[in-house]
Amino acid sequence: MAAQAEFFAGIPKISYLPNAGARDVMCFKHYNAEEVLMGRSMEDWLRFSVCYWHSFCGTGTVATDPTLPLCADPFGFPTLHRPWNEGTPMESAKKRLHAAFEFFTKLGVKYYTFHDRDMAPEGSTLEESNRNLDEITDVALQLQSQTGIKVLWVTCNLFAHQRYMNGAATNPDCHVLAFAGAQVKKGLEIAKKLGAENFVFWGGREGFLSIHNTDVAAELKHMANFFKMAVKYKEKIGLKCQFLIEPKPKEPCRHQYDYDAMSVIGFLKHYGLESHFKLNIEPNHTTLAGHSYEHDIVMASTFGMLGSVDSNTGSSDLGWDTDQFPMDIRDTTLVMKTVIEQGGLQPGGLNFDAKVRRESTDLEDLFIAHIGAMDTFARGLRNAVRIIEDGLITGMVKERYSSFSHGIGQKVEDGSATLEEMEAFIKQNGEPKVTSGKQEKYESIFNHYI
Amino acid sequence: MAAQAEFFAGIPKISYLPNAGARDVMCFKHYNAEEVLMGRSMEDWLRFSVCYWHSFCGTGTVATDPTLPLCADPFGFPTLHRPWNEGTPMESAKKRLHAAFEFFTKLGVKYYTFHDRDMAPEGSTLEESNRNLDEITDVALQLQSQTGIKVLWVTCNLFAHQRYMNGAATNPDCHVLAFAGAQVKKGLEIAKKLGAENFVFWGGREGFLSIHNTDVAAELKHMANFFKMAVKYKEKIGLKCQFLIEPKPKEPCRHQYDYDAMSVIGFLKHYGLESHFKLNIEPNHTTLAGHSYEHDIVMASTFGMLGSVDSNTGSSDLGWDTDQFPMDIRDTTLVMKTVIEQGGLQPGGLNFDAKVRRESTDLEDLFIAHIGAMDTFARGLRNAVRIIEDGLITGMVKERYSSFSHGIGQKVEDGSATLEEMEAFIKQNGEPKVTSGKQEKYESIFNHYI
Amino acid sequence: MAAQAEFFAGIPKISYLPNAGARDVMCFKHYNAEEVLMGRSMEDWLRFSVCYWHSFCGTGTVATDPTLPLCADPFGFPTLHRPWNEGTPMESAKKRLHAAFEFFTKLGVKYYTFHDRDMAPEGSTLEESNRNLDEITDVALQLQSQTGIKVLWVTCNLFAHQRYMNGAATNPDCHVLAFAGAQVKKGLEIAKKLGAENFVFWGGREGFLSIHNTDVAAELKHMANFFKMAVKYKEKIGLKCQFLIEPKPKEPCRHQYDYDAMSVIGFLKHYGLESHFKLNIEPNHTTLAGHSYEHDIVMASTFGMLGSVDSNTGSSDLGWDTDQFPMDIRDTTLVMKTVIEQGGLQPGGLNFDAKVRRESTDLEDLFIAHIGAMDTFARGLRNAVRIIEDGLITGMVKERYSSFSHGIGQKVEDGSATLEEMEAFIKQNGEPKVTSGKQEKYESIFNHYI
Amino acid sequence: MAAQAEFFAGIPKISYLPNAGARDVMCFKHYNAEEVLMGRSMEDWLRFSVCYWHSFCGTGTVATDPTLPLCADPFGFPTLHRPWNEGTPMESAKKRLHAAFEFFTKLGVKYYTFHDRDMAPEGSTLEESNRNLDEITDVALQLQSQTGIKVLWVTCNLFAHQRYMNGAATNPDCHVLAFAGAQVKKGLEIAKKLGAENFVFWGGREGFLSIHNTDVAAELKHMANFFKMAVKYKEKIGLKCQFLIEPKPKEPCRHQYDYDAMSVIGFLKHYGLESHFKLNIEPNHTTLAGHSYEHDIVMASTFGMLGSVDSNTGSSDLGWDTDQFPMDIRDTTLVMKTVIEQGGLQPGGLNFDAKVRRESTDLEDLFIAHIGAMDTFARGLRNAVRIIEDGLITGMVKERYSSFSHGIGQKVEDGSATLEEMEAFIKQNGEPKVTSGKQEKYESIFNHYI
Repeated sequence: MAAQAEFFAGIPKISYLPNAGARDVMCFKHYNAEEVLMGRSMEDWLRFSVCYWHSFCGTGTVATDPTLPLCADPFGFPTLHRPWNEGTPMESAKKRLHAAFEFFTKLGVKYYTFHDRDMAPEGSTLEESNRNLDEITDVALQLQSQTGIKVLWVTCNLFAHQRYMNGAATNPDCHVLAFAGAQVKKGLEIAKKLGAENFVFWGGREGFLSIHNTDVAAELKHMANFFKMAVKYKEKIGLKCQFLIEPKPKEPCRHQYDYDAMSVIGFLKHYGLESHFKLNIEPNHTTLAGHSYEHDIVMASTFGMLGSVDSNTGSSDLGWDTDQFPMDIRDTTLVMKTVIEQGGLQPGGLNFDAKVRRESTDLEDLFIAHIGAMDTFARGLRNAVRIIEDGLITGMVKERYSSFSHGIGQKVEDGSATLEEMEAFIKQNGEPKVTSGKQEKYESIFNHYI
Repeated sequence: MAAQAEFFAGIPKISYLPNAGARDVMCFKHYNAEEVLMGRSMEDWLRFSVCYWHSFCGTGTVATDPTLPLCADPFGFPTLHRPWNEGTPMESAKKRLHAAFEFFTKLGVKYYTFHDRDMAPEGSTLEESNRNLDEITDVALQLQSQTGIKVLWVTCNLFAHQRYMNGAATNPDCHVLAFAGAQVKKGLEIAKKLGAENFVFWGGREGFLSIHNTDVAAELKHMANFFKMAVKYKEKIGLKCQFLIEPKPKEPCRHQYDYDAMSVIGFLKHYGLESHFKLNIEPNHTTLAGHSYEHDIVMASTFGMLGSVDSNTGSSDLGWDTDQFPMDIRDTTLVMKTVIEQGGLQPGGLNFDAKVRRESTDLEDLFIAHIGAMDTFARGLRNAVRIIEDGLITGMVKERYSSFSHGIGQKVEDGSATLEEMEAFIKQNGEPKVTSGKQEKYESIFNHYI
Repeated sequence: MAAQAEFFAGIPKISYLPNAGARDVMCFKHYNAEEVLMGRSMEDWLRFSVCYWHSFCGTGTVATDPTLPLCADPFGFPTLHRPWNEGTPMESAKKRLHAAFEFFTKLGVKYYTFHDRDMAPEGSTLEESNRNLDEITDVALQLQSQTGIKVLWVTCNLFAHQRYMNGAATNPDCHVLAFAGAQVKKGLEIAKKLGAENFVFWGGREGFLSIHNTDVAAELKHMANFFKMAVKYKEKIGLKCQFLIEPKPKEPCRHQYDYDAMSVIGFLKHYGLESHFKLNIEPNHTTLAGHSYEHDIVMASTFGMLGSVDSNTGSSDLGWDTDQFPMDIRDTTLVMKTVIEQGGLQPGGLNFDAKVRRESTDLEDLFIAHIGAMDTFARGLRNAVRIIEDGLITGMVKERYSSFSHGIGQKVEDGSATLEEMEAFIKQNGEPKVTSGKQEKYESIFNHYI
Repeated sequence: MAAQAEFFAGIPKISYLPNAGARDVMCFKHYNAEEVLMGRSMEDWLRFSVCYWHSFCGTGTVATDPTLPLCADPFGFPTLHRPWNEGTPMESAKKRLHAAFEFFTKLGVKYYTFHDRDMAPEGSTLEESNRNLDEITDVALQLQSQTGIKVLWVTCNLFAHQRYMNGAATNPDCHVLAFAGAQVKKGLEIAKKLGAENFVFWGGREGFLSIHNTDVAAELKHMANFFKMAVKYKEKIGLKCQFLIEPKPKEPCRHQYDYDAMSVIGFLKHYGLESHFKLNIEPNHTTLAGHSYEHDIVMASTFGMLGSVDSNTGSSDLGWDTDQFPMDIRDTTLVMKTVIEQGGLQPGGLNFDAKVRRESTDLEDLFIAHIGAMDTFARGLRNAVRIIEDGLITGMVKERYSSFSHGIGQKVEDGSATLEEMEAFIKQNGEPKVTSGKQEKYESIFNHYI
């Protein structure tokens, strides 16, 4: 892969650690891909993925080039001037692809994710856009084959183009919905071509800015019917990947229908779609919805719906999506504990839907950010493994709920109890005793593992 | 009802309006119970209800008397010294009941709501508590019959007693769940006795403070099984009322499972309970969940699940439940527009789950607050009626979605369209045109009606 | 002004009101510039101003043309295609100016505001940028003279260019601070040339994204010294306008030093700058700081520091700056009450730092939005006048504090009282009586005026 | 101290750590009072203090006994039944004091803090309240002398009693202000008697619930004059302690004047009080004000105003004051880094204004919570020491601002530069170069120390 060398050749070493000067670019302190924990390699537990849009299309703002759609600073111009952003849109799309695969390879990550429109530039017609995609994904397929790197998921950008300003599947104009449908058709075909293991729907414009001009009932029905079309076409072409919906409460819409995990679960069940979809949870979206970092990961997992994770973070004092690299060890410990408890994320993974800050203008910052985040997740994994293997917390929790394993508790558990039995039990046994929840003890023990 | 006169006799007139000195206590400026709008009286559209806990048990703090459970100021002692809070708990329970019925009557409101424990004091055993309830509800039944005032809904207080500190239906100890079950059994019987039109479940402790000590999957299952017991017993005793779940995102728990309308809908559908429950939406809870004031009312109505409304408000700059009297005309206009569009709230209503501020220590403040809120809703109703009767906004919205009434839009609408058809449509018709959402126009027209 | 006609000629009438079809573009329902209230014309009380950046540079996203810096949708491409955005940057800058003056004139607004960089495109050197500004402001001066329209305020864009990504006056590199200084020097000269009545500093990048890399003490000192240089140069060139600082808590920075009104007041007093600055309050920034809509307007006015108002609004359920047109009558009533009570805003005004939604793509939406907002403020003014002239609320408040007009209250008021006197007073007079705050009564009366 | 043994005798060992069974009650894993770091003992850096109200008056709700004012669960009754809450108010006040000193001693903490009213019950007159205080503080003085435990700070409870519902120093009725003044006079005398090192003012009711009934200007002036009386009396009686104001944005008020650090600094400077006060920062209040955990500690320290810290935490997803024990190592590291950089907190300290959860009903939970939090701060201190001693981050920051140490940067630094010089510099040197902020690198290095 001669072409790659030109992009990151100037970054032979990453020196963020005090004495890492002598190491090469992949100087992980905690992440060790091959190391086996609880019968599985770290690589297998973590299934890291690099996202294409932030790391290879991002310019530190909404781009001046409409082929580079994502990365927002609403008050500033571009600051990230990447060597691959040169030439015609198709030329730079190819350079970008080579740069990306060079990066994936040097970083040692096996998966990547992309939107149709950040992989290949949108043309002036659907046909031209599709041709562009065909041409660029031919190169991608070749690079995948050369490197062994795979697609974690594909998604369609149904939100950046002006045609989608009032929604895609929920647009008041069915002409727009039709365009979105045509785009998703092609996206599914590309997913098949590249062997994507999942396909994500993020409904950034599926919601409303004003309740005054919106027919919520109509829009929800159209969205459900849109998903049904996608399911049907997926089955028709024999695409095997997992469909995922990514919840987000707001931004760019004032309100998005896929507000959080439970909202999506309610929607899917109402429209009979729950067997065809799982969730792709992004913690920065979870906290914007007013929940704690780990909340939607726990809830989705509890309902058997956790498919994949966009492993990023926000700042708890900010009310918008900052897509920062995850750097909090407590957070990653909780996430990995849930992941281990559900037996892993396969076919999902941990996708870094995160961008270097607009001010992190050095090319090496891309490496530093990913390495720092991967190490943070590696520490989280090690902590979670220790917590689970020790069994101390698990045992305390099990003991806490032990009354449901026998007697009247067992009847409640299996659904055979009645209110009359409850009353009889109380008349016989009187007031329950008060049992400490011992939150501070749990927190102190948890800290012990961090 | 001689007994009433002693409580509010000193408040012959409400003088909050500049020139209302000569009017009597019910000096509504906008509310006119008998007036007919769109074929129904204002009273019938609004179905106002006074809540028992705030207005008759509230003391301006958590009470010093454990029979008066609700009304929070976590930093202060009682300020509201009501003349009915005298004597033994049972004596004051009776005085309170007479005061309440005097108030309902003078205010001209036809419904009230209560928790089992604010109606009658909790005893030292379930049996004693039940006897207290029997004795007090005998009086209530008599007062209902004398005055024609009815119960909008009953609910059980499954959160204030220390036994519920770790949850009721989701308590880790099945003994506590059993107590809650026994209490709900009695609550259902009381609902039947008093002819309650609805029965509410508010899961204030059904959630968690710490994820570390919580088995979410187990708790959700227990909660579902608890609801199933209640459904079964309701059917057994032939209770005809509507079951309602009241969502709240947090407080007192850090996280409550009934976070918002969509969370509850997801939960109900997952456990096959959706035909037995509707929702009681409290806007102050909705805004705490990060939504706009009207959001959950609109969503619940869209899913056919809007049963009743706790008509209060919070302050958008505060992060806890303030249960203020609703005073914003824009808000009440939006609520009443949704209520009219779904054909009314029957058998639900607009329950003032609102309390006078801790600093509003005059007895007349109780009247002023209710009258101000009723007038605010009456203005909202009038505005909504004018909006709907004019048809201007409705017509604009209808036109906005008109493409779904024919051709490919019709196929999307009825679910028969495919992605292949979408693509073919775009290949033939090309790029959709951009259509202004005209939010500012809608807002300006809406303001025209306020 | 022949040139103007081409831009808005196609919008002869605004039809948002049901029966306004026959009126011309300025169909205000409530705003009547000449009408006199409390001895002053509405125009004089309201001093409306149109902002240049949103209304004439906005494209529905961060622009593809770096001369059009502001208007954010971080997830979308431009949607607003204005006829004046054609030709070279300098050509379109001139077209834009003509369009703007046509708009101001047709709308009947007497003031406008602008950033240096949205008036004239930034060149590749400071010298070129300054020449561009000279050339375009020559035209502006001519148009001002022809139309009588004036500059409410000028400001320098010290945040969009990549050089400012780490701050302007607080940049860790003094080279950047120097560039900002040079830019402000020119800005002050332009303010003088165009007769601007105020000059605004908005420190969008004066703060930090990460505490780890920031020397807060150094940055605050540099910012203070930067302001001192500006004060000195203003005096040197004899510029008479009022300096204003515009607080904002966050966005684009994670934390901005000018967090809210009190933060700026604290900063100014600490560095001895308080006599040279007042505040330009933007309510959307106030609510982002966790306050109620009117809070910073009231606080700034209380401290004698309210200079001007950026009359826009946000959505209380969103955590970022949406710069919507103000449409809430309650809000505008409270603002205008404060404005009247301090005797007006002169030389400040009500600047519409607001943008049509990205989806409001029709050219007429610009008129509709401004007219709707001006009517909303006109209603607020009328309400405030009625409240003040009636004197009911004012009288109640005066009575509430009447104990400070005599006796020991008078001594507290004038600062001569001591703790010993307080104790003696209590020993003599005992426990104070409890007095209702009567919030619901105040709210109900306030509603009476809306 | 025979009396103590009875309260905590049943808790010989704390077993929260996996293998701590054999250790005694003070089984710290990280905290080691005598250990010297950077020339000072851990005890000296940390200056831990236990608060009286939460840990000895708390009952898991607002108390049923008005002598136990603080500890909020607005929806629940007491759950914490302490053995010292028995007998008459004065009897239990004495038992509580012995229990507290037994706890301080066993825990090994050298400081405590209290409100006048949680130390001794309020009487029916000021005189009786003062006599109660005299009697109980006689015992306290004796216990202090026996144990060597000292008072970190005293404060007056000017918010719980109904007389303060509309404010203390900002009450519209000067009679109430006088009562507050009399109470503070006594508080200052008690502070002197017990050798308190600081005296805190927390203005929980100094603000408003409704702007409609409030004269902000009058209230701020009264508050300033109230503080001036306190300063004068402090000087008169020769009390040497540091005065501290504790900011909080809201709760119980809708808005509190002491919103955050900068608000208080602005207020103090406006009224010429800044030399008499420093700040007592509570991070849970800081986050409620919309800032990051460490923000107000950093800002107060930057302005030379950081006096003491109420070392607790909230939950970032909750909008009210939860007063949890601090358990996040990242947070404590940042706090201790600031504390070390300003040379310590003396005469302030780290006061655990934190309460065990309402559900943590075991007596041992009091120990577990404090030990867990002390260990968390000990880890934070060790981390901060390593960061500072290594000098890596400090060096990077110093380098980042190095341009201000010479040439034009030096002139900006010392305040002698002018805008003309800035312009000349740019004309000569042109565009500054873009320098990466390297946030992810800083974060990764910071993580390295955690």
